[in-house]
Amino acid sequence: MQKLLPHSISQLINLLTSLPGVGEKTALRYALQMSRWTPEQILSLSESIKALLDLQKCDECGAYSDQAICIYCSDPVRQKSGHLCVVESFSDYLAILKSGEFRGLLHILGGVLNPLLGIGPQQLTIDKLLSRIKSRGIQEVVLALNPSVEGDITSTYIRELLGLQIKVERIGLGIPMGGSLEYLDALTIGKALENRKSL
Amino acid sequence: MQKLLPHSISQLINLLTSLPGVGEKTALRYALQMSRWTPEQILSLSESIKALLDLQKCDECGAYSDQAICIYCSDPVRQKSGHLCVVESFSDYLAILKSGEFRGLLHILGGVLNPLLGIGPQQLTIDKLLSRIKSRGIQEVVLALNPSVEGDITSTYIRELLGLQIKVERIGLGIPMGGSLEYLDALTIGKALENRKSL
Repeated sequence: MQKLLPHSISQLINLLTSLPGVGEKTALRYALQMSRWTPEQILSLSESIKALLDLQKCDECGAYSDQAICIYCSDPVRQKSGHLCVVESFSDYLAILKSGEFRGLLHILGGVLNPLLGIGPQQLTIDKLLSRIKSRGIQEVVLALNPSVEGDITSTYIRELLGLQIKVERIGLGIPMGGSLEYLDALTIGKALENRKSL
Repeated sequence: MQKLLPHSISQLINLLTSLPGVGEKTALRYALQMSRWTPEQILSLSESIKALLDLQKCDECGAYSDQAICIYCSDPVRQKSGHLCVVESFSDYLAILKSGEFRGLLHILGGVLNPLLGIGPQQLTIDKLLSRIKSRGIQEVVLALNPSVEGDITSTYIRELLGLQIKVERIGLGIPMGGSLEYLDALTIGKALENRKSL
């Protein structure tokens, strides 16, 4: 199909297929829709994408932010909470904030330990995590790393690193709200049984 | 949610939600994925989108093309066929070409007549269509306009404009391949009954 298209549209389609869940057909639809936009819209989109190159990160937690220290890290209530939640990525950080259930500081690790991909402690923001725990007087760390072999290893690694002075907890593993036992995998059900609570 | 995000990501999300089928959640996913791309990938995407401003159209049929006259309009077999297929848009043009069933010339109308939206014959490439029919010695015109009130009116309009010298046909209306009577609307079934063929 791409041979029917001018070079610039083909190239755009190739790039768009790198987006999650976007195949050639969807990319073509997007490209043709964009080609019908006004020049102002096209330029704004082109410029906004370019602006991703200048994204700033918060010096403390590592989240994308317009300020050097983001609004959450500079929030005095969160600073005084003594709680810190560790997540893998910015999207997980947004998920925790959106839940509205955590009122402490957050920290983006930038991934999880994965020796096969060459990701060791130096590739993550573990040093920064330790220095923040010290300087902010954190007493409780909540590890909100995704359940996977790497997430488990990273949780254990951080647990051991922090010593016994600090309370370290992992976010609860179990059956998601609205989930159905019938469709869940055996590992999740195993975890849910392990994490049962008396009523 | 957008207040959690830096200005540049929020703006990108707003623009991406103008794409078909892209809501805020998908736009956020796309934006975060792009933010993880290499600077080269980000710049290429930004440039490819900007390049849409310089898209060239074929002088004959109106399709996007790298050449002044596209490969289909300059194909001698198609030129000599005496057949011309009229479509609304570039996406419909691609659909006809992909079917591989039409070996004549194509023509993009740029829309259909719609008095309510102020689209009259002057807003479409109808003059160009008439001059092409004359200069290319077209004897048969296939109207592949989508079935809608406006598509029907436009088909009738072109039929009357071309006079009796030229054979004008409309693409078949009926049940799509793999379609099921049970799920099709009454209008489609009505058309299918009207267009029945003896076996």
